[in-house]
Amino acid sequence: MNQTKGSQSIVFEEAPVIVSAASVAGSKEAEGPLGKLFDMTNPDDLFGAQTWEEAESNMQKEACVLALGKAHIDPEKVRYLFGGDLLRQGIATSMGVEPLRIPMFGLYGACSTSGEALALAGMCAAAGYGKYMLAVTSSHFGSAEKEFRFPLGYASQRPLSAHWTVTGSGAFLVAAKSASAGEKAGNLRHVRIAGITAGKIVDYGLKDSQNMGACMAPAAMDTIICNFRDMERSEGDYDRIVTGDLGYVGQSILFDLVKGKGYDIRKKHMDCGMEIFDRETQDTHAGGSGCGCAAVTLASYILPKIESGEWKRVLFVPTGALMSTVSFNEGASVPGIAHGIVLEHF
Amino acid sequence: MNQTKGSQSIVFEEAPVIVSAASVAGSKEAEGPLGKLFDMTNPDDLFGAQTWEEAESNMQKEACVLALGKAHIDPEKVRYLFGGDLLRQGIATSMGVEPLRIPMFGLYGACSTSGEALALAGMCAAAGYGKYMLAVTSSHFGSAEKEFRFPLGYASQRPLSAHWTVTGSGAFLVAAKSASAGEKAGNLRHVRIAGITAGKIVDYGLKDSQNMGACMAPAAMDTIICNFRDMERSEGDYDRIVTGDLGYVGQSILFDLVKGKGYDIRKKHMDCGMEIFDRETQDTHAGGSGCGCAAVTLASYILPKIESGEWKRVLFVPTGALMSTVSFNEGASVPGIAHGIVLEHF
Repeated sequence: MNQTKGSQSIVFEEAPVIVSAASVAGSKEAEGPLGKLFDMTNPDDLFGAQTWEEAESNMQKEACVLALGKAHIDPEKVRYLFGGDLLRQGIATSMGVEPLRIPMFGLYGACSTSGEALALAGMCAAAGYGKYMLAVTSSHFGSAEKEFRFPLGYASQRPLSAHWTVTGSGAFLVAAKSASAGEKAGNLRHVRIAGITAGKIVDYGLKDSQNMGACMAPAAMDTIICNFRDMERSEGDYDRIVTGDLGYVGQSILFDLVKGKGYDIRKKHMDCGMEIFDRETQDTHAGGSGCGCAAVTLASYILPKIESGEWKRVLFVPTGALMSTVSFNEGASVPGIAHGIVLEHF
Repeated sequence: MNQTKGSQSIVFEEAPVIVSAASVAGSKEAEGPLGKLFDMTNPDDLFGAQTWEEAESNMQKEACVLALGKAHIDPEKVRYLFGGDLLRQGIATSMGVEPLRIPMFGLYGACSTSGEALALAGMCAAAGYGKYMLAVTSSHFGSAEKEFRFPLGYASQRPLSAHWTVTGSGAFLVAAKSASAGEKAGNLRHVRIAGITAGKIVDYGLKDSQNMGACMAPAAMDTIICNFRDMERSEGDYDRIVTGDLGYVGQSILFDLVKGKGYDIRKKHMDCGMEIFDRETQDTHAGGSGCGCAAVTLASYILPKIESGEWKRVLFVPTGALMSTVSFNEGASVPGIAHGIVLEHF
């Protein structure tokens, strides 16, 4: 029986495993510090499509096919797919995963969606609802700028607190513990989802959609502290505490907020948005963001570290800023949400 | 142990129960055939807000508070909330449920979202991930027209195949079987979620976003037939097979598609979009639609029939058309998705 812990967390008695992961990324990401780690990149960011939206769908489909291929699993063997993206009505996901013909649950958690998808995939695998679950998310710089900001041709000036949406998609094949034994293994054999901490929506009243790090930091703090309390842990129990895309601005706020709760995570913290681009040469201001940012960083960089045993336990906390152009124009604040996933080497 | 059935379904060994349900609806819905059944309606459709979006958020919050109140359950007792709406980036849900401070999973399945939310809430309750789960969805005529079509002031002509988005929100408090015994009961004591059939995305290549019934009918057929096969049932095993919002056009297509698979559901079929408005007097063309349509019809009309035992077993199949103004303008097709929920009197 799986155990609920504290107010928001679950620790799996039979922890599901991540048997494979795949990353597909764009040209700017290919030139960044993690560039050589991605499974597939594309020089024109269109991935064979005519539009940014279709390009994003193609990335999702490729990431899923790659993750399935690495584990030698046909799509028919996947019980449920959990996926999402940043676009209105999640069309990148709907159009991207449709050809796989896997029963699917569409998600929206802004840039926290990779955590939401992994949480639900892990929960369903651990509950015996199927052998294999697929979690996939994506974002695309071109489609996101169109969705949230200005047409690229305007070349509008960006404040230093702004993020650069990552062009990328990450897919993760999650298997029930019982299923993973005996079958041909994927590219990962030693990574399990030990537990999850589902996030609450946290609204500190900030309204600046060009400073998403500040909007999301309170939610990241809330989920991290809740994870510590629910699981009776502290920063010392994790080799890394990885947020999704707080960036340079959000990170410093997170450190302050966490310190106010009596913890110091500075030595353990890593932010995917700060890892994926080079601050000096790539001019991405606060760092990377988007549903794809945490997903491709997890698939390409974090999971191999856990697989090798270099990191034994990681708290992965993708963070999302909940807003739309409509809510922004109507003067609403930008609440945040963050979902925590406990990943362990076994 | 819960049992997976066939390719897409689950039958719960310890079926979770719906302990309470609440419906909040707009003025046109109040004048319709179900008008007297809703828990709360509002004559100006603004629910105390300044914008349609905020009005929709207020409806969601009210529906949740009403459902919780009927069962005498505080929000803190709810482990996870599953919610969604039609708006870009799901802001009606984010802004609506934020004050409840319940850990939440944001969903997007277009008008199928009430089924998606009930499926995941039921799956999590049955898996022992918490005593109480909340499922909530909404739609609003004003916010949906703005999101998908034309400013209301244009008074643009609508084709006869077009739907009228329902202003409404339905919330459902789902409890684990073990939790429901012993605690003070909600307004429902005899309705259980016996199983689910998660839907696949089905794309027949239709591109007319003003004919959503035709776009969604193939997905409804796919899920209904899959449910029959997975659970070794046919139309005779259900008192009603209830689709979300196929409307008059979609219903006739569904009948033909299902007949092609060797079944005849005409005597058992009901469509929420056809029930909620009066065809003769309310001028809503193909019928109602939106995440709120199936949700408020379930809460106000269907669940009481199951509660009383008039209907012993119902297959509830909300249907969604997966599109956005961007995908439509780029010439993409409109795929559909439908999730099936088996509701039983016990």
